Amino acid sequence: MKLYHWKPAPNPRRVLMFLAEKGVAVPMEDVGQGFTLRPDYVQRYSPATVPMLELDDGTQIGEAMAICRYFEALYPETPLMGVTALEAATIDMWERRAYEFGLTGVAEIFRNTHPEFKDRCLPVYGERLPQIPGLVERGQWRLRRFYELFDAQLEGNEFVAGPRYTVADITALCTIGFAHFSKLDIPAKYMNFQRWYGEVSARPSAAVYGIAT
Amino acid sequence: MKLYHWKPAPNPRRVLMFLAEKGVAVPMEDVGQGFTLRPDYVQRYSPATVPMLELDDGTQIGEAMAICRYFEALYPETPLMGVTALEAATIDMWERRAYEFGLTGVAEIFRNTHPEFKDRCLPVYGERLPQIPGLVERGQWRLRRFYELFDAQLEGNEFVAGPRYTVADITALCTIGFAHFSKLDIPAKYMNFQRWYGEVSARPSAAVYGIAT
Repeated sequence: MKLYHWKPAPNPRRVLMFLAEKGVAVPMEDVGQGFTLRPDYVQRYSPATVPMLELDDGTQIGEAMAICRYFEALYPETPLMGVTALEAATIDMWERRAYEFGLTGVAEIFRNTHPEFKDRCLPVYGERLPQIPGLVERGQWRLRRFYELFDAQLEGNEFVAGPRYTVADITALCTIGFAHFSKLDIPAKYMNFQRWYGEVSARPSAAVYGIAT
Repeated sequence: MKLYHWKPAPNPRRVLMFLAEKGVAVPMEDVGQGFTLRPDYVQRYSPATVPMLELDDGTQIGEAMAICRYFEALYPETPLMGVTALEAATIDMWERRAYEFGLTGVAEIFRNTHPEFKDRCLPVYGERLPQIPGLVERGQWRLRRFYELFDAQLEGNEFVAGPRYTVADITALCTIGFAHFSKLDIPAKYMNFQRWYGEVSARPSAAVYGIAT
C-alpha cells in the first residue's frame, strides 16, 4: 500500500498523525507541486484530493476519516475511534464538529483570500471556481463557534471527546495548525482550549509529517 | 431515549431511514416550527441542529452519522456501515462524498436562494449570516461532480459502496430528495444513477418519516 499526501495540507496531516499515534509506518509519497497537486496524481485519482491510500490491488481509499477508519480496524490497539457504542458516537460527533466548524471555517477564510487560490475556492483542476469574498465572514463565524463549543467542552474534559485522546483531538489540532498558518491563533480568552492545545501539541504525533517516507 | 428531528430536513431523514432499514423504533419529536427550530430546542441544544439523540441520562448525541454509528453498534444485524476494514472504509468514503459533493451542493443552492433563509446561509439563531449569491454557482459545481462521480461508480456496482445497501445509499438518496424539492432532479444522461435511484427509492425506508412518533 501507499499513502499519497501533500505535506503542508491539513487533511493529509489528520492521517499522518493518526498513524503516528498508532505507531504504524506506511510507505508514502508527497504529490504536492507548489500550491497544486501533481498532474499525474490528478489524472490517476479523479476526486483530486489528498490524502488517498492505494492498496496493492489498486483499490483507492480517499477521504481522511475513511482512511483512518481502515487503519483503526487493522490496528485496533490504542483505539482512537472508540470501543463502545457511546464512545464511537461521541468521538464521531466531535470529530465532525471539528471539521464542520473548525477546519471548514479556516478553509473558507484561507481559500477565499490567498492569491494562489484566486480561481480555486475548492480543489478544482482544469476549470475555474473563483474565490467568494463573502465566505471570509462566514468562515470567521464558523471558527468562532468552533472555539466556543470546544472551549466549553474542554472545561470538564481532558480531551475533546472525553478522558482519552482520540481522532477528534487530531482534527481539532490540525485545525489549529492550519489556523496558525493563516494567522488565526486561538484567542487568549479560550483558556480551556489553550490548556488542551499545550498538552496535545507536545505529543510526538503533533510534530510528525511523513513516517517512513 | 428520544430522537429530535424536523420532518422536511434532509439530515434528520438520514437517521430516520437508517432506523427504518434496521427495523428499530425510537421515540421521536419534531422540533420544527415553520422554517426554524423551536426556541426551546435551540436553548436546550446549543449547536441548534437536527437530528439530535438524547439518552435517558441527558447525554446529547448530535450529527446524523454519529447517531447512525451509535445505532449500528447497538444493532449490528443488517450492517449498514460495513463489517471488514475495507467495507467500513469504502462506505465511509462514499458517504462523505455524498455529503460533501451532493448534500452540501444542494444546501449551498437552497440556503442561498430561498427567501426564508435570507439571513441564515448556515443554521444560526440570534444573529445574521446573510445569503452569499456566489455559493449558488459553487453548489451547482458540487452537485455536478456528485452526479458524475456517483454515476461512474454505479456503472459497475448495484449500490453506492458496492454489492450491499449501506448508509452511503441513504445519504445519496436524501440528497436526491432535497435536490428534487429544490427542482434539481438527476439529469437524464446519468443513467446508472437513474437506475439506482429507481431501486433505492422503492424500498420502504425511502417513504418513512418518523417511526413510532
